[in-house]
Amino acid sequence: MHKLMAAELDKVVEEIHDIRKNAKDNHDESRPKWPMIVFRAPKGWTGPKTWDGEPIEGSFRAHQIPIPVDRNHMEHADKLTAWLKSYRPEELFDENGALKPEIAAIIPQGSARMAANPVTNGGKLTKDLITPNIDDYALDNQDHGKQDGSDMTELGKYIRDVIVLNKDNKNFRGWGPDETLSNKLGAAFEDTKRQWMEDIHEPNDALLAPEGRIIDSMLSEHMDEGMLEAYNLTGRYGFFASYESFLRVVDSMLTQHFKWLRNSHEETPWRVDVPSLNVIAASTAFQQDHNGYSHQDPGIISHLAEKKTEYIRAYLPADANSLVAVFDKAIQSKQLINLIIASKHPRPQWFTMDEAKHLVSDGLGVIDWASTDNGEEPDVVFATAGSEPTTESLAAVSILHDHFPEMKIRFINVVDLLKLKKDDPRGLSDAEFDAFFTKDKPVIFAYHAYDDLVKTLFFDRHNHNLHVHGYREEGDITTPFDMRVRNELDRFHLVKSALLATPAYTEKGAHVIQEMNSILNKHHDYIRSEGTDLPEVEDWKWTTLK
Amino acid sequence: MHKLMAAELDKVVEEIHDIRKNAKDNHDESRPKWPMIVFRAPKGWTGPKTWDGEPIEGSFRAHQIPIPVDRNHMEHADKLTAWLKSYRPEELFDENGALKPEIAAIIPQGSARMAANPVTNGGKLTKDLITPNIDDYALDNQDHGKQDGSDMTELGKYIRDVIVLNKDNKNFRGWGPDETLSNKLGAAFEDTKRQWMEDIHEPNDALLAPEGRIIDSMLSEHMDEGMLEAYNLTGRYGFFASYESFLRVVDSMLTQHFKWLRNSHEETPWRVDVPSLNVIAASTAFQQDHNGYSHQDPGIISHLAEKKTEYIRAYLPADANSLVAVFDKAIQSKQLINLIIASKHPRPQWFTMDEAKHLVSDGLGVIDWASTDNGEEPDVVFATAGSEPTTESLAAVSILHDHFPEMKIRFINVVDLLKLKKDDPRGLSDAEFDAFFTKDKPVIFAYHAYDDLVKTLFFDRHNHNLHVHGYREEGDITTPFDMRVRNELDRFHLVKSALLATPAYTEKGAHVIQEMNSILNKHHDYIRSEGTDLPEVEDWKWTTLK
Repeated sequence: MHKLMAAELDKVVEEIHDIRKNAKDNHDESRPKWPMIVFRAPKGWTGPKTWDGEPIEGSFRAHQIPIPVDRNHMEHADKLTAWLKSYRPEELFDENGALKPEIAAIIPQGSARMAANPVTNGGKLTKDLITPNIDDYALDNQDHGKQDGSDMTELGKYIRDVIVLNKDNKNFRGWGPDETLSNKLGAAFEDTKRQWMEDIHEPNDALLAPEGRIIDSMLSEHMDEGMLEAYNLTGRYGFFASYESFLRVVDSMLTQHFKWLRNSHEETPWRVDVPSLNVIAASTAFQQDHNGYSHQDPGIISHLAEKKTEYIRAYLPADANSLVAVFDKAIQSKQLINLIIASKHPRPQWFTMDEAKHLVSDGLGVIDWASTDNGEEPDVVFATAGSEPTTESLAAVSILHDHFPEMKIRFINVVDLLKLKKDDPRGLSDAEFDAFFTKDKPVIFAYHAYDDLVKTLFFDRHNHNLHVHGYREEGDITTPFDMRVRNELDRFHLVKSALLATPAYTEKGAHVIQEMNSILNKHHDYIRSEGTDLPEVEDWKWTTLK
Repeated sequence: MHKLMAAELDKVVEEIHDIRKNAKDNHDESRPKWPMIVFRAPKGWTGPKTWDGEPIEGSFRAHQIPIPVDRNHMEHADKLTAWLKSYRPEELFDENGALKPEIAAIIPQGSARMAANPVTNGGKLTKDLITPNIDDYALDNQDHGKQDGSDMTELGKYIRDVIVLNKDNKNFRGWGPDETLSNKLGAAFEDTKRQWMEDIHEPNDALLAPEGRIIDSMLSEHMDEGMLEAYNLTGRYGFFASYESFLRVVDSMLTQHFKWLRNSHEETPWRVDVPSLNVIAASTAFQQDHNGYSHQDPGIISHLAEKKTEYIRAYLPADANSLVAVFDKAIQSKQLINLIIASKHPRPQWFTMDEAKHLVSDGLGVIDWASTDNGEEPDVVFATAGSEPTTESLAAVSILHDHFPEMKIRFINVVDLLKLKKDDPRGLSDAEFDAFFTKDKPVIFAYHAYDDLVKTLFFDRHNHNLHVHGYREEGDITTPFDMRVRNELDRFHLVKSALLATPAYTEKGAHVIQEMNSILNKHHDYIRSEGTDLPEVEDWKWTTLK
């Protein structure tokens, strides 16, 4: 059998050489028929043939312990010995139990050893990724919130240029389950195609070619994640952009890759670091206007965060500049799973590229232009993570400031959520955490996903005066703003939450609370009669705080 | 096309009748070739043929908005009108826009309406499940912890009898991905087989038959979960027993079923309740002696719990009596996802059936025989959820009591974890919660899965003096007790945690803490030299507290 297998492998290697030569010499871009060896062996082959009158080899029983022997049950030890002797150990070992020199000589040396071969230790082959200057993609947000923009559309331009810059190195690819366009990364196709090696029938097919850096022609998150994992393990860079909720079908694959990263780092230090696995969750729970409730599951972030966060990053950039800065950091990193939760719909743009860079490098930051605490102890802290949470919180600050100009509000945007985690090597110290969030002032935390994760992050900190507004599993096919209202993540609920949590303002805030209730009722009726959001919501713009 | 389709359906219905008649008349148990209609239609069939020079019908473009018209962009409204007129509305509606009587007459009436047909509203067809008396399966645990037993093995006997009792009603089935035996439910096969309609080759195949109540012959969690969902929706009862970590591949399927249950309850009240979807997570993170780190992901419980827990139950029975009582409750329930985390290895048995019944009906309980607080305010509360956490906590209480007989310890076992959740209709009131856990005494919570979920449950309560010991993503192929040590869920770490968290005992506990450190060091060396756990751990037995 071994000789047969060796001969078959030789044959196959030559076939592969021929295919490659043909493709090169004749510029043949058609899909070759790669050889495949189908090797069917009996389950438990070479194991004990039978036990207790029933077949072991070739049956499901080979999956179990074939001969029941352990330190407390030695009565069948002779049968175990007889079986093990069938492997003829006397041909392999000398009388002292040492491997015979002629056998030892077979063992490969150096990089011919399986795990030392660079093909299996891909980090050895990694070439630095060439990245453009992110300032070239900056939206001018000096006038905060004045312009709308689609974050993913802007990221598409950065990705297009990464493809161009690394064309010769062939070490960058993107994956999507037929969603690269609907996730708004279309700019990438200005310079590349979706790779597709079957026949192409224009005009019903589009953007396909035998060579391309985007793999997007299968609606299979499993294939995408699996191919990206494999690509990373060869030492190359890539990303997988998916609808947020559909990522849940690869929960287990991400877990296994995380476990691999962790063990590779902690148990096999001879492994060279490989590029990170980058997952973009676009088309999120709050951006499912026509898909609705079935498409809403923002829990991928909690799934990853309950593991060892040393190997996990969870980024929630609130605008395009932040997203480009996050991606620029993630794509160059090693040995991580980077989850990036990204907005694709036109949304207000908030931060200058300079602000975005600081938010990404520090993980979070106080936004001076949205704060009224003037460096003093605030009455209330607004914290935000994500696109809609940030817009709604800014609108809530506006409303509060209009009514209570003396109220001291601190506004914090969090991009790198797991910096808040205490038992993580990168986590803020308690002193830093308290400096940002105070030890006891109310924190109104507007958050993209399920409330629970933020509660766990605060649990190990001093300040438990936390009021999280996240996705509360309320959804339907409804208006964009109504999705926020249903989950109490909208500006009006946030204003109420802040007033109710801030004792000095609870009583004098009664009329404002009442006003919020009224406008929520108006919203309820308006969307049902008009089918669109209230004009005062749709047309709202940030104005500089006095 | 409609006539063609109708004729084809007629033909197929007759073929199905013939197959059934043949099976009945000739006792033909072989697998029939059920008819299948393969219907291939162009994507976007009957939609606009082209737009802007590119094909719509028959191309991927049909997936998008075919003609770009909305209230702000009406310039192509005439094209939209022309397309919609191609459906000939004048044949369906009169000049007032009302459906013509001859068309209205086609609409089915009563239970011929698709959603009113009992076949699609399976709750209408549900017959009560006949269940045995759980006392018949009780282990006698008057002498707590004296005997070992495998919880899943005991449950297998109960399941066997449910199969027998409901044989005529044909409304109970179990699923497993080729794991019913390794999950220790073998007793079920005393009365039934694994259903398998292909050829059967004894003796390499075993326990297969064309008719059987267990579907266990495919290693596919997706198939199992999907078939069970469908079976529930026809109004029948079942369970799916899986290795715990492998359940993560059906995270998204469980989410979708939960969303269905929720919407069915809240939005379509005419739907009759259907039996719950019961998932048994056996072969858990702490019972993977020879499989190791890749097989450890206890996060299915957090995945389900971050949804609306009104529709979710998460049970962590600590022994066989509790497991049987939990399953007896779950299997008869409606409209829920019941997650049952179950032990299969031989483990000490703790609770009498009477205790188990109370734990299950109340969700949790103070265990008098393991408590030394005598109804007074305790110095420290031990809370446990799960098999290993309960055993380790009891051992920790023993050690503490030996050293500090005056220490007032309260011992609480939690079976129905989500009873602790505040914003759940079934959740304990704050007063009840405080009565169990106190407002501020240290709670040493030994827990089966990731720490985070317990933190979120306590976050909304008064008592934040919580010390969770759960699965901390530390694993390997190691001894059973070492799995607990690595995650600091073992008795020795629990003793340390209790002493460090209880100010009156921290200083005088120093020598005991030192003793715990010594034995942990001894454990570290012993398992490496002997390959088994320390005899004082393996042979430890509970003794009555003085």
